[in-house]
Amino acid sequence: MLVYSKINIILEIIGTVAFASSGAMVAIRKNMDIFGTIVLGVVTALGGGCIRDIILGITPPNMFRNSSYAIGAVLASIVLFVVFYYKKDFFKARVLKTYENIMIVFDAVGLGAFTVTGINTAVELGYVDDKFLLIFVGMVTGIGGGIIRDLFSNEVPFVFKEQIYAISSFLGACFYLAFRNIINADALMIGSAVVVVITRIIAVKYNLNLPRVNYDS
Amino acid sequence: MLVYSKINIILEIIGTVAFASSGAMVAIRKNMDIFGTIVLGVVTALGGGCIRDIILGITPPNMFRNSSYAIGAVLASIVLFVVFYYKKDFFKARVLKTYENIMIVFDAVGLGAFTVTGINTAVELGYVDDKFLLIFVGMVTGIGGGIIRDLFSNEVPFVFKEQIYAISSFLGACFYLAFRNIINADALMIGSAVVVVITRIIAVKYNLNLPRVNYDS
Amino acid sequence: MLVYSKINIILEIIGTVAFASSGAMVAIRKNMDIFGTIVLGVVTALGGGCIRDIILGITPPNMFRNSSYAIGAVLASIVLFVVFYYKKDFFKARVLKTYENIMIVFDAVGLGAFTVTGINTAVELGYVDDKFLLIFVGMVTGIGGGIIRDLFSNEVPFVFKEQIYAISSFLGACFYLAFRNIINADALMIGSAVVVVITRIIAVKYNLNLPRVNYDS
Repeated sequence: MLVYSKINIILEIIGTVAFASSGAMVAIRKNMDIFGTIVLGVVTALGGGCIRDIILGITPPNMFRNSSYAIGAVLASIVLFVVFYYKKDFFKARVLKTYENIMIVFDAVGLGAFTVTGINTAVELGYVDDKFLLIFVGMVTGIGGGIIRDLFSNEVPFVFKEQIYAISSFLGACFYLAFRNIINADALMIGSAVVVVITRIIAVKYNLNLPRVNYDS
Repeated sequence: MLVYSKINIILEIIGTVAFASSGAMVAIRKNMDIFGTIVLGVVTALGGGCIRDIILGITPPNMFRNSSYAIGAVLASIVLFVVFYYKKDFFKARVLKTYENIMIVFDAVGLGAFTVTGINTAVELGYVDDKFLLIFVGMVTGIGGGIIRDLFSNEVPFVFKEQIYAISSFLGACFYLAFRNIINADALMIGSAVVVVITRIIAVKYNLNLPRVNYDS
Repeated sequence: MLVYSKINIILEIIGTVAFASSGAMVAIRKNMDIFGTIVLGVVTALGGGCIRDIILGITPPNMFRNSSYAIGAVLASIVLFVVFYYKKDFFKARVLKTYENIMIVFDAVGLGAFTVTGINTAVELGYVDDKFLLIFVGMVTGIGGGIIRDLFSNEVPFVFKEQIYAISSFLGACFYLAFRNIINADALMIGSAVVVVITRIIAVKYNLNLPRVNYDS
């Protein structure tokens, strides 16, 4: 039993809550009803892992085997909905800014934990040498849910446009591949997640963006 | 041979026509061409079942094993397209209102039949105790096609915003789970579908909506 | 070893470059960053084949077994991005028109190659008599990537609205089914691809569109 396994469960729970909250928040801002809010919370938290499992041929996807994550995502979405339903003005005026700052950290933790979990899932199935596949499943587990969230709310996915986000997941995945067989499993997984979290938080703090073309200017 | 099996085929045919028509109607309103109209008709009618099958690991999905539903969806879409192509003004002025009222009932019947079919498919594969999975596949079979339809027409999915719709499917699924092993299979399936239809029609009649937050007000 | 196998690889490479370029171009026009540009390039080039593989139960999808296509799509996207990043004004003023005309031909070649590859993939798995499945996987391999591209850029998919495009893929698939067991495999595959290319180029040249309803007029 690796130390990381226990740490990872804690990180995944933080990530699930953060991702679900980000989905629910988008739904609330778009004036969706409580059902839409729950769906966006759940797909944001679990959608990336679900795509990963379908690509790896894991059916039904893991989210249906251990429903505690889904339940957590549903509860987080409902709590956020209820807060806004009854205390919208107070929340928007007094809490929103602090809430969003906390959520950036939680979301970064989730991105790190999900990236590592994604790669682990493929490694456990024996895909140890398919570097492209491993990076892909790591990233899709990390960012796939947010892409579905944005498609469901009729927006161009955030990760294609703004800030360093997917790249943090990519760098964590690269760390994982580079140090596999070199450091022990605990250090590997914790290190990969830390790479994601640190690069992500630096990107937010300094508002780092990838280059883009201003096509119409 | 269950009585329901025969009833279910009739209900599924009604549902396929209603769902395909709803997809084709959206495509026509969005000025899509006849190919887009057929695609939206087909994905609305069969998309939910297709997602269900991929999640359950049924490949290729059932829609490819029994193509009669796909053919029905194509034909329904073409008929609607032809009617609008040649008789648009007449249809819009004289028939549209009646047509839409009939379609609400047909659509509710389809939602009920598809919800039950979705759960049955998972039960037949042996997932009898995975309540979360059973409710999910029931609902995704019922509402998944409409979600794809709305994504393809660049809208926030209807089910996240308006009226009681997904909840009818949810209630039908809950009835199914609650009364399994208590009443016989025929009664179980008919009862579940009836719960969906009745709650859905009440929701339309009284314009019932789920709570939502008016974020910007 | 069929002659077509070698030809097909060349055609698929042309198609991969053309499809990736079309995805990257949309991303650049939408002011996505370089990550978004690469993702749109890759999903446009490989997304159709990925959907096909998931429907056929091929996991992980072929794009992960032979990563040369993914690498080609990434490189094509990066090259296009770099050109626009450093030489946007020159490119838009002097090269864009010629570039787009060449890309229409390349894209048609890709549509033909991908349609044939899609059907071949299903035939090799033994689905020789499922006509509906064969036509579907041929078409989805050809047009699926473009549909994902348009969803990711928040547009109604091009193929549902404009010109003869999907129908070229459909006609090529029909040619394949009609002449299987009649002409040899090389002639069958080359003939099918040629049907796609010719019908597509005629459609562009004469701006042929499928009928549509002008709903609001």
